[in-house]
Formats: sequence, structure tokens, C-alpha cells
Amino acid sequence: MNYPIKKTYNKIISTKNRGMNLEDDINLTNEYYLANNIAVIYKKPTPIQVVKVLYPARNKAMINEAYYKIPSTTDYNGIYKGRYIDFECKVTNSRTSFPLRNIHNHQINHLKNINYHGGIGFIIVYFKYYNEYFLLPYAVLKDYINNNDKKSIPYNIFKEKCFKIKEGFQPRLDYLKQVDYLLEN
Amino acid sequence: MNYPIKKTYNKIISTKNRGMNLEDDINLTNEYYLANNIAVIYKKPTPIQVVKVLYPARNKAMINEAYYKIPSTTDYNGIYKGRYIDFECKVTNSRTSFPLRNIHNHQINHLKNINYHGGIGFIIVYFKYYNEYFLLPYAVLKDYINNNDKKSIPYNIFKEKCFKIKEGFQPRLDYLKQVDYLLEN
Repeated sequence: MNYPIKKTYNKIISTKNRGMNLEDDINLTNEYYLANNIAVIYKKPTPIQVVKVLYPARNKAMINEAYYKIPSTTDYNGIYKGRYIDFECKVTNSRTSFPLRNIHNHQINHLKNINYHGGIGFIIVYFKYYNEYFLLPYAVLKDYINNNDKKSIPYNIFKEKCFKIKEGFQPRLDYLKQVDYLLEN
Repeated sequence: MNYPIKKTYNKIISTKNRGMNLEDDINLTNEYYLANNIAVIYKKPTPIQVVKVLYPARNKAMINEAYYKIPSTTDYNGIYKGRYIDFECKVTNSRTSFPLRNIHNHQINHLKNINYHGGIGFIIVYFKYYNEYFLLPYAVLKDYINNNDKKSIPYNIFKEKCFKIKEGFQPRLDYLKQVDYLLEN
């Protein structure tokens, strides 16, 4: 009864949920930071190209045709201890490395610009297989981008050079604790 | 031939265009800042609640039903000289004052949070009648919010306590020059 098509379907669904969970966890963490006056960090709305709008009522606009656009920046930004914070969240199924194709070129360029202007840019990477969350600083990412041979960042580099984010209850993923370590170095 | 309904229609169109022009001018200015390595400031996408998505092709998603949401933050944020920048743009037709009902309460609260964490929050106000652009710092805005009797900020307060933004060719509206004055004080 295990038709290949069913398997594929299940895989798509579960991958999607996993990504959503990381995003939800980060959103909950940001709500905690905001409520406790720790930081102001928001997820940017998904960019959507609106083509057609209907007005079913006088003051009600219903978007009838629209398309998702590719984001030109990262998903999250805000302020923490007076510093500009900017990051993207990514999930990987790989046991050995984080494939760089997960990040758009213009997102890498955006993090480069942020770094140039004195902001703190990073990527939060979730290794699903190990159930481990890492803060990948732009500086470490840059080393791998400049090395054209590499198309992914090995898992052991995360262990050695990145900051592991601990899971908790409140906040769910206290990534700003790792930003503190980043600021110290 | 001058039916009242036509007049109203014309008025709606022109008001809308005016708002769009300010936004376009700020967007062009931000592009200039980015291209010249001066600052990284983006307009956030409009938040949209997606209800229904169709898939007319295998890898093409068409949003078929969606609604505009009220933004919980301001429209623009980014980084300049290592500082977190956060602002909203508003147009007014009034000759005498800027009505505070133009700004949502949660936007004011957002600017308050930004200010608390050491960011630079402000509103760019365009007085259409005078064709004048002002940078209204959060500190000046706060004085008027705390004074419950006041429902608007008089035009002369803009003249006295705000920073006038000059129109130019490139950049179109060099508001960061006024942020420099704000940083000095």
C-alpha cells in the first residue's frame, strides 16, 4: 500500500511543518523579548505582489489575485542593546552540512551590507536530524562564501565556530544570549 | 457639468497619489543610500492575510483570497552609522496642524519601544499645502501625546522643533542629513 506518491506527499507536508515550527518558535521568542523589554525584533511580512483587488463592501478590500515575491532582505530585524539585529532562519534535513543554496544571493549580500554598517547579521540554522539550533554569524558564513569550492558548511563547523542555541520554555529559543557571546568577541 | 460625485472622485485620486509620491520619493532615496553605502533602509512589505491559494501550475502559487492587515509597526527600518533607524511617512492636507489620528496607537507604542532600546524613531510628515517635508522626532511627538488635550501638532511646532527635509535630485529627500542633526543634539 506504500505508493511512492503518498511518500512524497508526506515528505512535503512534514518539511513544511518543520520550517513553520522554527518560525513559530522564533516569533514566540520575539514576543517574549518584546513583553519583557529585552529587544524589539519582528518578522517582516511576506512580500506579495497584488494584481487585483475587489470591493465587496464600501470599506472592505478583498485581494482577488496576488503572487508571492522573492524577499530582497532577510526575514527578521530589529534592535537589541542599541544594536541593529538582522537574521534569517533556515531548517536543514542534512546530517553532514548546511547547503548554501538554502540562502539567496541577495540575502547574503544584504547581510554583508548590514555587517559593513555595524549591524549584527546572522542565520539561525536548525539541524532537524540532531534537533540542534545554531547561530551562524555572518563572519563564519563569509569564509565559506569566499571559498568558491564549498557549496555547503559542514556540521562540524557549526559545532566548532557557531553558537548553539538552547531550547527552553520561556523564551523558547533564547538566541539573544548567543548574540551576547558574539558581541563579547 | 460639475457633479459633486466627480469632485469627490477626483479628490480621492489626488490624495492617494500624493501619499504614493512621498513613499516613492523615500524609496528612491533609500535606493540611493544603499547604492552609495550610506545606509541600509527598506520599506517593510504590506502585511497581508492570505486565506486561499490556488495552484494553476505545478510550481506556481496564485493567491485567490487575501485581506490587508493593520501594520503592527512602522513602514521603514534599517541601519545608519551603526544606529537602528525606524520611521513612518505621513501626508497631511492641513495648513495648520498634523492630526495625530494619522498615526495608529500601536505605531506610537512601537516608536516608544525603539526609543527605549536606543534606536532612532521618527515620522516624516509632508505638509502638502506648503510642499514642506519635516522630520518629527519621537521626543517631540511624545510631548504632544502625553498632553491629552492635544489631538494634533501645530504647524508652527514643526517650524520650531522639527527638522526640515530639503528636496533634491539625488537623493530625492535627504532625510538622513536631518538624522545627523538629531544625533548631534
